[in-house]
Amino acid sequence: MRENFEKNLEELKSKITEMGELSIIALERSVKALKTQDVEIAIKTIEGDTAIDKLEVEINQFAIWIMAKEAPISRDLREIIGVLKISSEIERIADFAVNIAKSTIKIGQTTSLLEITHVEKMKDISIEMLRKALQSFLEENMVLAKEVGDLEDEVDQCSRENYKKLTTYLSEHPEETNQLVQLLFVNRYLERTADHITNIAESAAYLIKGQIYDFNS
Amino acid sequence: MRENFEKNLEELKSKITEMGELSIIALERSVKALKTQDVEIAIKTIEGDTAIDKLEVEINQFAIWIMAKEAPISRDLREIIGVLKISSEIERIADFAVNIAKSTIKIGQTTSLLEITHVEKMKDISIEMLRKALQSFLEENMVLAKEVGDLEDEVDQCSRENYKKLTTYLSEHPEETNQLVQLLFVNRYLERTADHITNIAESAAYLIKGQIYDFNS
Repeated sequence: MRENFEKNLEELKSKITEMGELSIIALERSVKALKTQDVEIAIKTIEGDTAIDKLEVEINQFAIWIMAKEAPISRDLREIIGVLKISSEIERIADFAVNIAKSTIKIGQTTSLLEITHVEKMKDISIEMLRKALQSFLEENMVLAKEVGDLEDEVDQCSRENYKKLTTYLSEHPEETNQLVQLLFVNRYLERTADHITNIAESAAYLIKGQIYDFNS
Repeated sequence: MRENFEKNLEELKSKITEMGELSIIALERSVKALKTQDVEIAIKTIEGDTAIDKLEVEINQFAIWIMAKEAPISRDLREIIGVLKISSEIERIADFAVNIAKSTIKIGQTTSLLEITHVEKMKDISIEMLRKALQSFLEENMVLAKEVGDLEDEVDQCSRENYKKLTTYLSEHPEETNQLVQLLFVNRYLERTADHITNIAESAAYLIKGQIYDFNS
């Protein structure tokens, strides 16, 4: 029974890792599409989301099956609940990549103004955060979980600077309204992406320490 | 055993109703604050979110406790999973009210430009949708679930019109950039609110018919 449970849990965790990798690809792709205003890559990002959604459904069904079958308690239950929460966070992170891709399509064929923002930096930090957050959960590493919280502050700082820069530029270049508004949305999506990655680190901390953490404040 | 299960399920459902009522209050309040640029009401909306978050945690813990204790199968399990999904959707809907309140605070004391948008109409339709979606789940009413999907199309239409109006106004009134950008965010939040309410109707349809529906397309 115990052995079975461990085996099932390992399978759940490997699916979480797979979801994480797919969402990192989605984030990379979406920002690349935005930078080069490449609508085809944007469409690829949107299409790739189906696999991530499918994985989330699989994880949910598998976790529920385990709960129904083995009625885990205390730490085991916390671990399964953690997997459920994390898969739903990753799904939302991937949705933000889809939103960025949709913004790219709305901007259309034009010269990208991305270089006036920290969007690429935010994407890089977010990917670093996601790797650390997942590793902290899978290896029960509290140090990594805390690092995620620190990195989130950097993303927030970038986001505030982007907001100022984009709105200032907007008031001076009304002819670029459409692209600038979409970039303001992208800025918001990446800020939210970092929030959700921080939630993963908080789930990891909850598993490790058995108490609720708030790395957002 | 059966009687116990039914009683527990009723309690879960009454908590869902309570969450729904609180999030309707939050939506009403947030748009009122935005309309009158009343920062105090905005702060009240943000503070009110704690009660909604707390209810979601209670529902989650209670549902997990029922699953661990009674290991429900087939329809009973679908009902509990439905409750879990719906509570997480309501929590997100309430978060959008908080986001609207935060936008109100960012806009600050100024003359509201809300009347050039359909924001209040979107809020009214969303509240109607939420009532119908919850009722469709609680009373297993498929007709109501479908009506939610139709109403979502109206919200999407409002959202598209708002986007056009606000960006056009923005390119003509750069001095109002800050407020207009925040109103563009609010427009997005309400569009997303309607999406999440539609997810509730889909959960209801899944419970009633045992198959997955997509009212979004």
